[in-house]
Amino acid sequence: MEKASVLVVGAGDATGGAIARRFAREGYIACVTRRSADKLEGLLERIRADGGVAHGFGSDARKEDEVTDLVARIERDVAPIEVAVFNIGANVRFTVAETTERVYRKVWEMGALAGFLVGREVAKVMLPRARGTILFTGATSSLRGSAGFCAFAGAKHALRALAQSMARELGPQGIHVAHVVIDGAIDTQFIAENFPQRYALKDNDGILNPDAIAENYWSLHRQHRSAWTHELDLRPWMEKW
Amino acid sequence: MEKASVLVVGAGDATGGAIARRFAREGYIACVTRRSADKLEGLLERIRADGGVAHGFGSDARKEDEVTDLVARIERDVAPIEVAVFNIGANVRFTVAETTERVYRKVWEMGALAGFLVGREVAKVMLPRARGTILFTGATSSLRGSAGFCAFAGAKHALRALAQSMARELGPQGIHVAHVVIDGAIDTQFIAENFPQRYALKDNDGILNPDAIAENYWSLHRQHRSAWTHELDLRPWMEKW
Amino acid sequence: MEKASVLVVGAGDATGGAIARRFAREGYIACVTRRSADKLEGLLERIRADGGVAHGFGSDARKEDEVTDLVARIERDVAPIEVAVFNIGANVRFTVAETTERVYRKVWEMGALAGFLVGREVAKVMLPRARGTILFTGATSSLRGSAGFCAFAGAKHALRALAQSMARELGPQGIHVAHVVIDGAIDTQFIAENFPQRYALKDNDGILNPDAIAENYWSLHRQHRSAWTHELDLRPWMEKW
Amino acid sequence: MEKASVLVVGAGDATGGAIARRFAREGYIACVTRRSADKLEGLLERIRADGGVAHGFGSDARKEDEVTDLVARIERDVAPIEVAVFNIGANVRFTVAETTERVYRKVWEMGALAGFLVGREVAKVMLPRARGTILFTGATSSLRGSAGFCAFAGAKHALRALAQSMARELGPQGIHVAHVVIDGAIDTQFIAENFPQRYALKDNDGILNPDAIAENYWSLHRQHRSAWTHELDLRPWMEKW
Repeated sequence: MEKASVLVVGAGDATGGAIARRFAREGYIACVTRRSADKLEGLLERIRADGGVAHGFGSDARKEDEVTDLVARIERDVAPIEVAVFNIGANVRFTVAETTERVYRKVWEMGALAGFLVGREVAKVMLPRARGTILFTGATSSLRGSAGFCAFAGAKHALRALAQSMARELGPQGIHVAHVVIDGAIDTQFIAENFPQRYALKDNDGILNPDAIAENYWSLHRQHRSAWTHELDLRPWMEKW
Repeated sequence: MEKASVLVVGAGDATGGAIARRFAREGYIACVTRRSADKLEGLLERIRADGGVAHGFGSDARKEDEVTDLVARIERDVAPIEVAVFNIGANVRFTVAETTERVYRKVWEMGALAGFLVGREVAKVMLPRARGTILFTGATSSLRGSAGFCAFAGAKHALRALAQSMARELGPQGIHVAHVVIDGAIDTQFIAENFPQRYALKDNDGILNPDAIAENYWSLHRQHRSAWTHELDLRPWMEKW
Repeated sequence: MEKASVLVVGAGDATGGAIARRFAREGYIACVTRRSADKLEGLLERIRADGGVAHGFGSDARKEDEVTDLVARIERDVAPIEVAVFNIGANVRFTVAETTERVYRKVWEMGALAGFLVGREVAKVMLPRARGTILFTGATSSLRGSAGFCAFAGAKHALRALAQSMARELGPQGIHVAHVVIDGAIDTQFIAENFPQRYALKDNDGILNPDAIAENYWSLHRQHRSAWTHELDLRPWMEKW
Repeated sequence: MEKASVLVVGAGDATGGAIARRFAREGYIACVTRRSADKLEGLLERIRADGGVAHGFGSDARKEDEVTDLVARIERDVAPIEVAVFNIGANVRFTVAETTERVYRKVWEMGALAGFLVGREVAKVMLPRARGTILFTGATSSLRGSAGFCAFAGAKHALRALAQSMARELGPQGIHVAHVVIDGAIDTQFIAENFPQRYALKDNDGILNPDAIAENYWSLHRQHRSAWTHELDLRPWMEKW
C-alpha cells in the first residue's frame, strides 16, 4: 500500500479515537484532531504503541481557514487523505423556549457547519484523484426531532442532508460518502459519569462499544464500489427503538 | 371571534401573500413581514381592498432582536398571535466544492435560524394561552439531499427537525405545529422568468397555485385538536416524484 | 352538481361511517359496505335522517368477484363513483413465533389485498373519466414495524406501497390518490370496551374523533389539483409519537 | 467453531449463491434452497470445489409445511442454523389496472409470506439458543412505491415491515435481524439478457457484484452485539438515486 492518511476530525476518547486506531492498524497514517491538541496525546501514544503512525492537530473545525489549513498540511506534509471521518457531536437538551440563539447557532456550527467545511475541503483534494471515503457520524436525532432537541436535531438533520447531497454528487465521481446513525449510548466517560445505570448495561453489551463502531467504519471503507452503502444504523442488541 | 392576528414571516408575492389573504378573509388581522417593508404595499392594499385588516413590518427574521421586537409589537399593538407561518426559503444550487462558507451559513440563517427565532418567540406568547398554530413551509429538499443542494437541503432538513421537535414538545401544551412539504414549482414571478417552459404548465395546473397552497394552511389551522396533522405534502397532480 | 357517489368500503360505526356521512352531507350518494349488510342499517338511517341518500352493500372486499360486482352495480344503478375510500383494518397482535400462517394471510387479505382490489376496480372506472379521488386509511404500523405487529405492519406497509404506486401512476391521469396515517386511538366502541383508561381521554380530545377524521378526507377530496396531498398524518394533540 | 449451518432460501446463481459461498468459506455448512433442487447442482459443486460443505434442498418457501420440514431437517440432520438468509424476489411490472388478483397474490406469497414463514421457523429454533442472525434481502421497492410496481412494492414493503418487527422483537432476545436494501441492477443472467446496455456497465462496476453483496451479509453477521445494524442500503457508485 502506498502511504495514505485517514483524517479523523473530533477524535475523542471513544468513537473517533477507536476509528483512528482501527485504520492505523491497517497501515493508514492517523491524522487526528481536537480543538486542543494536548488532549490528543493519549490517543497518539496508544496508536504508536500499537505500531501505528499518528499525528495530532489542534484545529477548530468550525473555522474555515483552520480546516483549509489542516487539509493542506496533511496533504503536503503527511500523505494523501484517503479517508476522512467527521465525528463531532454537540448534544444539548433544552425546551424550545429555553434554547438561546447562541446555543442554537453553536450546536449547528459544531454539528453541521464543521461537517460541511471538512467534507468540502477533503472532497476538493479527493476529486482530482477520483477516490476516497468520507464518513459522517449521525445519531438518533439525525432522523427524528424529539421534544427538547430542536437544536441538536437541527444540526444532525443538516449533517445528514449534507452527507446525502455529497453522496449523490460525489459518488459518480468515485468518492464514497456514507452516514452512520448511532442510536444508543456509547461507552464513554460522559455516560459513565452521568448515566451510571445506563452505563451498567455495558457488562451485557447494552451500550455501544467504540471498537465495534470503528469496525463498521472500516467495513464501509472497504466496500467494493459496485455495492456501496450510504447509510446504516448501529445500536445495541437490547436497545428499544 | 375575538380579535386575533396571523403572523406571516416571509410574505412574498406568492405563497406567503396568499396565506395572509386567506386568513384575513376569515377575520384574522394579517401581520406580514419582509426584509423591506415597502415591498409589502401591494399585498397590504390587496388585503384591505378585500375588506381585511393588515399590517406590514420590515423585519429581518435572522436577527433575534428584530424577531423579539416584532412579536412583542404585534402582541401589544395589534392582537394576540393565534397563527404564525414561517415561509422564508433560500434555494440555491451549487456543487459542494463551489459552496462557500458564506453561502452555506446564509442559507441556514434564512432557512433554519430564522425559523427557530420566529417559532420560539411565538411559542413563548402562545404557551401561556395554551393555544395557537405554527406552520412551517418545507420543500422537496426537506426530505432529500440532492446533488447540488447541500446548503439548501441542510437548512430545510434543519427546519423540518425544528418543526418536529416543536410539534412533539408543544402539542401536549395545546399548540399545533405542522410542516408542509411543497414539492414542485410554485406560480411565482421567479418561475415565470427563469423557467418559462415549466411555467407554461400553469395552464394545466401543473405548477402550484398559491391560493391552493393557502387553502391547506387554513385547513391545518382549522383541524380539530383530536386529529392534528404534523406533516403533509403538496404537489401538482402531474408532478413526477 | 351532477349525481355522483362516494364508495366507502369498510363503513363501520366510527371512521368509515363518519366519512360516508360527511360526503353525503355535500350531496354525494353514499355507497357503504361491510361484510354483513344488516350491520349497515344504523348508518343508512342516520344518513337519510340527515337528508342524505345512501345505499348499503354486503360485500367481502377480499373477493375479486364481489368487488368487481360492487363497483359495476354502483356505476350502473346508482351514480358514477367520484370518491372511493378504503377503510378496512385488521389489527392483531402476536409475537412472530405465535403468528400462524392463517393469521398472517388473513390480515394481509383484509388490509392489503382488499385495498388492491377496491383500488384497482375504482381506478378502472375513473381512468376513462380522468377524474376521481381514492383514499386509503393507514395507521402507525404503515410506517413502523413494531414488536408484536409483524402481520399487521406487513399489511399496512403493503397498503401504503399500493397507495404510493397508484398515486404516482394515476395522478398524471387525473386521479388523486392519498394515504392517511391515523396515529392514535379512535373513538370506537372497541376502545371504549377494551381500553377504558385510554377512552377516558376522550373528554379532553385525547382520542381521535371520527368526524374530525372525516373532515380531513373531505378536505383531501376538495384539494385543487395544482396542490394535491399524497400523505398526511392525524393524531390527537396530546399523543406521544 | 462448532458445526453450524447457514440457510439460504432462494439461492440462485447470483446473490443467494454468493452468500452461501461466502459463509461456506468461513466454515458454515451451506444449506441452500430453490424450488427445484436440481438447479442447485452447480452451486453445490462450486462450494465443494472450494473446500466447503453444502446441502441442497428443493423447497417451496410459500408452503408452510415445506418450510417447517426444511428447518427441522437441517436442525436434525445437518447442524444448528446460525444464520438464515431470505433472498426470494418476485419483481414484476404492471400498471394497477393490468395487475391481476393472481399476480398480486403470487408476488406477495413469494416476496412476503415466504419471508414470514422462513423467518418464523428459524426464529423458533434460534430463540431457545438466544443467538442467530436472520437477514432479509430488500430492494428499491422496499422504500418506495413506484408507478407500475404496486404488487412488487407491496410485497417488499411487507417484507421490510416483517424484518423491522422481528428486529425489535427478537433483538433483545439475542437474535440479530437485518434488512438489506439493494438499489440497482445485480450482475445476473437476467440483466445480461434483458438489459444489455445496463449490463455493459459491469466493466466499470456499475452493477452490483454478487460477491460484494455477500461480503456485506457476512459483515452484518459478524457485528458485535453492542453495535448491530438493522438496515443498510447497497448500490453501485455510479447509480442515480
